Amino acid sequence: MTPHHWLRWPAATTPAAGRGPLAFGADYNPEQWSRDTWREDVRLMREAGVNVVNLGIFAWATVQPAPDRYEWDVLDEAFELLHANGVAVDLGTGTASPPPWLTALHPEILPVTEDGQVLYPGGRQHWRPTSPVFRRYALGHVRAVAERYGSHPGLALWHVSNELGCHNVHDYSDDAATAFREWLRARYGSIDALNEAWATSFWSQRYSDWSQILPPRVAAAFRNPGQQLDFWRFSSDALRDYLQAEVAVLRELTPDVPITTNFMVMGGTKSMNYAEWRADVDVISNDHYLTAADADRYEELAFSAALVRGLARSRPWFLMEQSTSAVNWQPINPPKAPGQLARDSLTQLAYGADAISYFQWRQSAGGAEKFHSALVPHSGTDSRVWREVCELGAALSALTDVAGSTAAAGRVALLFDWEAWWAAELDSHPSERFRYRSVVFDWFKAFVDAGFAVDVQPVADDFSAYSLVVAPGLYLVNDETRRRITDYVAAGGHLVTTFFSGIVDDTDRVVLGGYPGVFRELLGIRVEEFGPLLDGEEVPVEGGGNGSLWADPVDVVAPEVEVLARYAGARAGAPVATRRPIGAGSASYVGARLDPATLRGLAARLAAAAGVEPDLDPSAAEHVLRRERHHDDSRYVFLLNRGDQPRTVKGESGFDVLAGRAVQDVVELPPYGAAVLRSPR
Amino acid sequence: MTPHHWLRWPAATTPAAGRGPLAFGADYNPEQWSRDTWREDVRLMREAGVNVVNLGIFAWATVQPAPDRYEWDVLDEAFELLHANGVAVDLGTGTASPPPWLTALHPEILPVTEDGQVLYPGGRQHWRPTSPVFRRYALGHVRAVAERYGSHPGLALWHVSNELGCHNVHDYSDDAATAFREWLRARYGSIDALNEAWATSFWSQRYSDWSQILPPRVAAAFRNPGQQLDFWRFSSDALRDYLQAEVAVLRELTPDVPITTNFMVMGGTKSMNYAEWRADVDVISNDHYLTAADADRYEELAFSAALVRGLARSRPWFLMEQSTSAVNWQPINPPKAPGQLARDSLTQLAYGADAISYFQWRQSAGGAEKFHSALVPHSGTDSRVWREVCELGAALSALTDVAGSTAAAGRVALLFDWEAWWAAELDSHPSERFRYRSVVFDWFKAFVDAGFAVDVQPVADDFSAYSLVVAPGLYLVNDETRRRITDYVAAGGHLVTTFFSGIVDDTDRVVLGGYPGVFRELLGIRVEEFGPLLDGEEVPVEGGGNGSLWADPVDVVAPEVEVLARYAGARAGAPVATRRPIGAGSASYVGARLDPATLRGLAARLAAAAGVEPDLDPSAAEHVLRRERHHDDSRYVFLLNRGDQPRTVKGESGFDVLAGRAVQDVVELPPYGAAVLRSPR
Amino acid sequence: MTPHHWLRWPAATTPAAGRGPLAFGADYNPEQWSRDTWREDVRLMREAGVNVVNLGIFAWATVQPAPDRYEWDVLDEAFELLHANGVAVDLGTGTASPPPWLTALHPEILPVTEDGQVLYPGGRQHWRPTSPVFRRYALGHVRAVAERYGSHPGLALWHVSNELGCHNVHDYSDDAATAFREWLRARYGSIDALNEAWATSFWSQRYSDWSQILPPRVAAAFRNPGQQLDFWRFSSDALRDYLQAEVAVLRELTPDVPITTNFMVMGGTKSMNYAEWRADVDVISNDHYLTAADADRYEELAFSAALVRGLARSRPWFLMEQSTSAVNWQPINPPKAPGQLARDSLTQLAYGADAISYFQWRQSAGGAEKFHSALVPHSGTDSRVWREVCELGAALSALTDVAGSTAAAGRVALLFDWEAWWAAELDSHPSERFRYRSVVFDWFKAFVDAGFAVDVQPVADDFSAYSLVVAPGLYLVNDETRRRITDYVAAGGHLVTTFFSGIVDDTDRVVLGGYPGVFRELLGIRVEEFGPLLDGEEVPVEGGGNGSLWADPVDVVAPEVEVLARYAGARAGAPVATRRPIGAGSASYVGARLDPATLRGLAARLAAAAGVEPDLDPSAAEHVLRRERHHDDSRYVFLLNRGDQPRTVKGESGFDVLAGRAVQDVVELPPYGAAVLRSPR
Repeated sequence: MTPHHWLRWPAATTPAAGRGPLAFGADYNPEQWSRDTWREDVRLMREAGVNVVNLGIFAWATVQPAPDRYEWDVLDEAFELLHANGVAVDLGTGTASPPPWLTALHPEILPVTEDGQVLYPGGRQHWRPTSPVFRRYALGHVRAVAERYGSHPGLALWHVSNELGCHNVHDYSDDAATAFREWLRARYGSIDALNEAWATSFWSQRYSDWSQILPPRVAAAFRNPGQQLDFWRFSSDALRDYLQAEVAVLRELTPDVPITTNFMVMGGTKSMNYAEWRADVDVISNDHYLTAADADRYEELAFSAALVRGLARSRPWFLMEQSTSAVNWQPINPPKAPGQLARDSLTQLAYGADAISYFQWRQSAGGAEKFHSALVPHSGTDSRVWREVCELGAALSALTDVAGSTAAAGRVALLFDWEAWWAAELDSHPSERFRYRSVVFDWFKAFVDAGFAVDVQPVADDFSAYSLVVAPGLYLVNDETRRRITDYVAAGGHLVTTFFSGIVDDTDRVVLGGYPGVFRELLGIRVEEFGPLLDGEEVPVEGGGNGSLWADPVDVVAPEVEVLARYAGARAGAPVATRRPIGAGSASYVGARLDPATLRGLAARLAAAAGVEPDLDPSAAEHVLRRERHHDDSRYVFLLNRGDQPRTVKGESGFDVLAGRAVQDVVELPPYGAAVLRSPR
Repeated sequence: MTPHHWLRWPAATTPAAGRGPLAFGADYNPEQWSRDTWREDVRLMREAGVNVVNLGIFAWATVQPAPDRYEWDVLDEAFELLHANGVAVDLGTGTASPPPWLTALHPEILPVTEDGQVLYPGGRQHWRPTSPVFRRYALGHVRAVAERYGSHPGLALWHVSNELGCHNVHDYSDDAATAFREWLRARYGSIDALNEAWATSFWSQRYSDWSQILPPRVAAAFRNPGQQLDFWRFSSDALRDYLQAEVAVLRELTPDVPITTNFMVMGGTKSMNYAEWRADVDVISNDHYLTAADADRYEELAFSAALVRGLARSRPWFLMEQSTSAVNWQPINPPKAPGQLARDSLTQLAYGADAISYFQWRQSAGGAEKFHSALVPHSGTDSRVWREVCELGAALSALTDVAGSTAAAGRVALLFDWEAWWAAELDSHPSERFRYRSVVFDWFKAFVDAGFAVDVQPVADDFSAYSLVVAPGLYLVNDETRRRITDYVAAGGHLVTTFFSGIVDDTDRVVLGGYPGVFRELLGIRVEEFGPLLDGEEVPVEGGGNGSLWADPVDVVAPEVEVLARYAGARAGAPVATRRPIGAGSASYVGARLDPATLRGLAARLAAAAGVEPDLDPSAAEHVLRRERHHDDSRYVFLLNRGDQPRTVKGESGFDVLAGRAVQDVVELPPYGAAVLRSPR
Repeated sequence: MTPHHWLRWPAATTPAAGRGPLAFGADYNPEQWSRDTWREDVRLMREAGVNVVNLGIFAWATVQPAPDRYEWDVLDEAFELLHANGVAVDLGTGTASPPPWLTALHPEILPVTEDGQVLYPGGRQHWRPTSPVFRRYALGHVRAVAERYGSHPGLALWHVSNELGCHNVHDYSDDAATAFREWLRARYGSIDALNEAWATSFWSQRYSDWSQILPPRVAAAFRNPGQQLDFWRFSSDALRDYLQAEVAVLRELTPDVPITTNFMVMGGTKSMNYAEWRADVDVISNDHYLTAADADRYEELAFSAALVRGLARSRPWFLMEQSTSAVNWQPINPPKAPGQLARDSLTQLAYGADAISYFQWRQSAGGAEKFHSALVPHSGTDSRVWREVCELGAALSALTDVAGSTAAAGRVALLFDWEAWWAAELDSHPSERFRYRSVVFDWFKAFVDAGFAVDVQPVADDFSAYSLVVAPGLYLVNDETRRRITDYVAAGGHLVTTFFSGIVDDTDRVVLGGYPGVFRELLGIRVEEFGPLLDGEEVPVEGGGNGSLWADPVDVVAPEVEVLARYAGARAGAPVATRRPIGAGSASYVGARLDPATLRGLAARLAAAAGVEPDLDPSAAEHVLRRERHHDDSRYVFLLNRGDQPRTVKGESGFDVLAGRAVQDVVELPPYGAAVLRSPR
């Protein structure tokens, strides 16, 4: 197996200098259109500067219309036409959705939900990750595709399946039950160990044989949390195992072609532990869509991009899917405002994306996603969207030299963990309103609003270089993480954690003696009982803000603990946030979900106490995002207007690559505008 | 087959003059009561003026208590008693709900929902429209009933089943799957044609054989819209096919007896394409119930009645079911206010009903609908409801001469289409808040509030005689309708259409080049992207109103287009409504859902521009409804007080039939009051 | 069978005087902990004054790890340790939740919901009450437990299963169908009688054979109400039958050991007719948990306790489960405020509890309820909760002499009936917002707020000694109750009833002639149509209050009827509440759900008219609860502060047992405080 780090550009595309190009493209589905349209497509791709497309992602039924018949002409011709026009291909293995003949022949591959509902054909991705039958057909198809196109000079990247786990990750079928038992046996070794881990002495649940274990199907009462948490782990692993199986076929046949699959780090996507999955691909790819009804949707985009940057370990990654304007799958799907198209893509670039791609090239006239925007919209090329697409293509061309640079780290890191997320949101908890990603996001936005470049790091990655590490709502902490965090503080690091952090070990077992058991001694405080708040309930804090969702009663234990903030009103004077100095480092606790202004102020105080200065002109921080990318010899400062009003940023200088002129100390950003300032390093 | 147009009155009932009587009655279920009560019933029917009842609708289990046994005595005796007392019979075929022995013997007739849920016995209408087994038993029962009662002199009308499709229209069973495939094969001829129509190249859905096709059962992701739309078409057709099968038995045995089945044009009833079904019956019947929680419930009644009038092509129709007061099946079921009983029925009369009937004669003491009001309520005849029933009977007697008259047309027509409705509300759209019937209703109420007699016409009917034709939210437009609308404007007609109209053809495929593709050139405007609004979002318009739900950005293309209304605020000056003069006609577009006052003003302007004057004193229009019925020689003006305050209407004269005196220029209407003014024509 | 009335205290525990002790304890689950912890447990039990624990409730899988293997060591040792430390044992039969081996071997014991959903293992109580297979295994287990521990000197009480019916009472499986048919055959004798009772002539539902009958599984339309009501009755009976089967085993083997099972009189628990179940146990036990989001949660606790007092016929009962602080199973689970722990338990004592127990002794570290509070919390004994536990233990010790006293009756009784509850909340009613328990609670709180000791009595119990009897929302009234109520009034009793009372007989058949048919003549009024109100709709009444939910139009019929309250606004002057004097008694009707202040005033007027004076200083009544317990020679007055502010109660004197000093005329209660005043009687 050859190590790859980026797509394999066809010879004609690779610049002599070895930098660039940035990739620009879209999913391309020629099977939906006539050959006349194909010729128009490649002409327009050249016009817009598109240099890579994602081909064949849903082509299975087209190329294999029956179990024993392949018809390659559509893919063959489209591939040739693209290659002849200088467009590289990210080629799908095509297994994203099984063809109707397969589900008709083998309905036993259909997934089953926790309530026994079979998920029928009609949509997409209706296959069980653990189905041996599906795997046999799908890997056969991968092999056929790889054999046909593996040596094509236009092949830049393999694209395994598509959005793995979007609809089928939690399958409760009998296939899943069998695989779950095998997974558990491998994890625990003995049924006694499983009983211990799952605390089955509660509610008479002690198993005496592996065969008694089922997925956590609908039950009469709350299901065992160990069973649930392990089923989340298993489901992520089972789908990853499928990913690895496709990768193995590709590695065998085309060891020189890099491989990706598109992750979905965004909004509510929770079920795949991408911190583990990333080990199986050469190129980290991500899909990202804005949530229209979310007022903080732009900051959520930045948060997601920061996490992808963390997953990619600061190296370039591929923004595989996004929309040029409206999507079709949310309840209400408004279009993007003018300028957002480029601003959003440049934000991804700022966090390390070297490829900017979209779903999809040409808006479908029929099918389930015909109202999803595209590079070529229903209204054709005489349209705002197409003009903005061409402008973005030109901008990416101007930014070619950015390619390959590092997405520079900030000095503040937020820790992020999928297992903690899964465990924290199981049922039967102090509050079912607790949403892990939202709790972490609150801190991300607070630091961004205060002008700090804040990173989001998988918890297993090394965080020792950060000046300030924040672990919000990190409910589950395994022994290794506990040790690493303790060591970090002992070595002078500054830790901040919050309510509902450090509660359980990796078997979801409470660390006893007072909350947060994992961090209690480190923090020098103690919480006897959780403080979840009822809907609409707010607890005032000194200074005029308030806590909602959660407001722990915090007892200070260690004498050296400083109280950073206190409750007002009925709890007046009681600590809400504390900080314990430990050598050169510190350990801080924030017991309530604070309103944004209060949290922003607290974040800034905690940063200052850790010796971290803001990275951005504070007067602009609430309206502008700032990130850097670095080559050894040069620095690119990305300044991105977060809103619909023009903004001025002071204290920034360099050559504005997009504007094509130098700026000194003052940068003016139009609504949704962006500037990229190049300077020597 | 003999053509029939109205129920066959027994000889004793038919007036010599050939006009009238108006029918007055109710569902009558003697099987629930003792024979003593029957005798009381017929006495009270005579007292109230009831001259027709709907008998035997749920009598299957009573008359056929076992597969091989019939017991006719209840129906025999009740029928004779009614006939002897001058009450004609609309006789149910009795197949509305299968008897327990049938579902016990053949559980395979039970319907199945999209998630596989079997609908068990215990309620009613638990049978699959496509079940050959059910059909065999049901048609056998129809034959038995027709053989026994087909020559009875009191038989005025056959009543096929009951509220066909109320609960079972969308059946996803294996029987349905088989029938769906047959229907598709008949529609498309080849699997390639189906693949093209359904755009199956999207998401790897290409079928290679008919046997692979399933109803759109629950799937992992959005189901194919072609599959969904065709399943709506199929389901309406499959149930219609069942209707036709019952009709065929009746035609064979009793060619001289007219046939009806009760439609449910009201509120949310969406699944039956009555524009097609009407061809199978001699008498159009409708059930209508008010939605208590709907502030516009009276106007919704008028809207429904207007649509039934359209279905009946202005000829008399049968208001089969309504309630005298409260119903039992809504979440909260308040009684009607005093006076509403007659006002509501006279409104149906105003729109062409010549038969005023209710569910049911005597309020049940037991069973699922015991809290549904009736002509004889639980409290007996010493009650407001009974007194109002008798008053209505007297009123209908006074109005006898109205019978047989035409429900006169207005000059404004709203186009209404079931296929457009189904398609517009599929998933994965710009906004799932779009509700077709509500969008059409907005325009109905706007015209009514502005004093216009506005009709609601099935889109396939001829609309060329109307001065102004409005097609709100007509998302799907087939080629024939497109041509007819274009011809209408070319011939000097005035067309108005709105946001989310003219988007797709009859395969749900988008007409490309900019929205609304079907009408874009006719309107002289172009919409690049849809403007769905988030919940609670409002866009101001000039003049103080606003748009909600939807606010398209409209680009004027043709130079002669006039802008009728413009956005204010952030979109200030941009067009929201446009009008393009085309010869003597015009084509107008309204891009937003406007608030009621703004829409009323716009409706009035559009009518004025089309040369249409209001039909009613404008000062009364918001509070009174006005419709006319016509004989060749006489005219009846119905004036109906929409609310609970007394109202004065100016400019109306004639002989007030209900009051029994002439009025001149001024009519006073008490709360919920009605006047019917007769004048020569 | 020996009659028992209380738990059998081990010799060492029973005081010579025969009074006391009060029981104090918790569920104890040693199988979750190490033997070291057990030793710590008994030490702490002694420290807190715990003298009884509920053992082995979920121990089935622990003691019988396989069908053919018993391992008694955990229970043996724990039992011995407890006994050696003076802690008596309420021993669970252990059948609350089947072990995994049983459901793996016999999945046919799993319950099935109305929509066919199998309830899988993973939680608890996943067994069909009617499963012969489950019964065979479970009774075998009961026998094994009884044989092993039946003669243990520390065994104070048998605890049958646990919270019977919490999750599995409504089972729609084929086992249930079979048992339902048998139950119906026993109830009705003939299928004709069933058809009559269920009014199956409606909707063609007439059965011709028992085999056709199914449980009311999901249907296409509203299910037959008779079928539904009888299924509620059957389900309660079927589970009671299971209870009786366990009891029979215990009676056979240990005739001298008293038996209990824990009821769940609280909040939404509706399905078990405890008025019937109580006949099968020696000791009435109840579980009660507060609903955190309910602003009236404390008064709801009092209401539940009052009903348990009624079930127990004023004799001592066992408060089996409650929480020391937060629970885990509501959406949001805040902790109790300081002081609530004791105040809540003393309230139960005030209503007759002689045993104060909790779930559970030591807070679990793992499993589904690890976030449920306990006597020994996660934070250990250095905690507010533990200190309050010890304080409560001391208080119960001081109150030892209360044991065995009668929970004294008030002079006002509310009638409560499970069948009426079930029937009133079936579907297809005037308003689905009607909630029976809430309607009764409104009256409870009104009387409490006005200073009256109000009891809540099962409707079948004798109420002739009460001066005032209120039957709110008693929708279903059988012939016997009708006669008893009529006799009560005739004998000089004062009856109050309300909207939606007296509507149907015990077959859910409406009593005709005007509402409320059962009581119409007694009340001297008549309601022609129900007055349910839409959401948010309020009808004003004279004096400034209003009605919501329901506001009947009431016609006075009997001339002697007094109008107690009238509507204002549009209905101005119409009666809302009436009172008919009948000899020395009276019959009153309240037609609307009145706001709390208006209802409180009306309750006080009705009491005064019945000659009943308040029991508590009216100035304190809204903030304090007052109940008495009586020995022949002494009286205990319980005064309980309902809120978080200090309160003063005037007019109370005696020896304050908790404070250890006499008080005269004035009692000061701290927030959530309690006083128990002893005085001679």
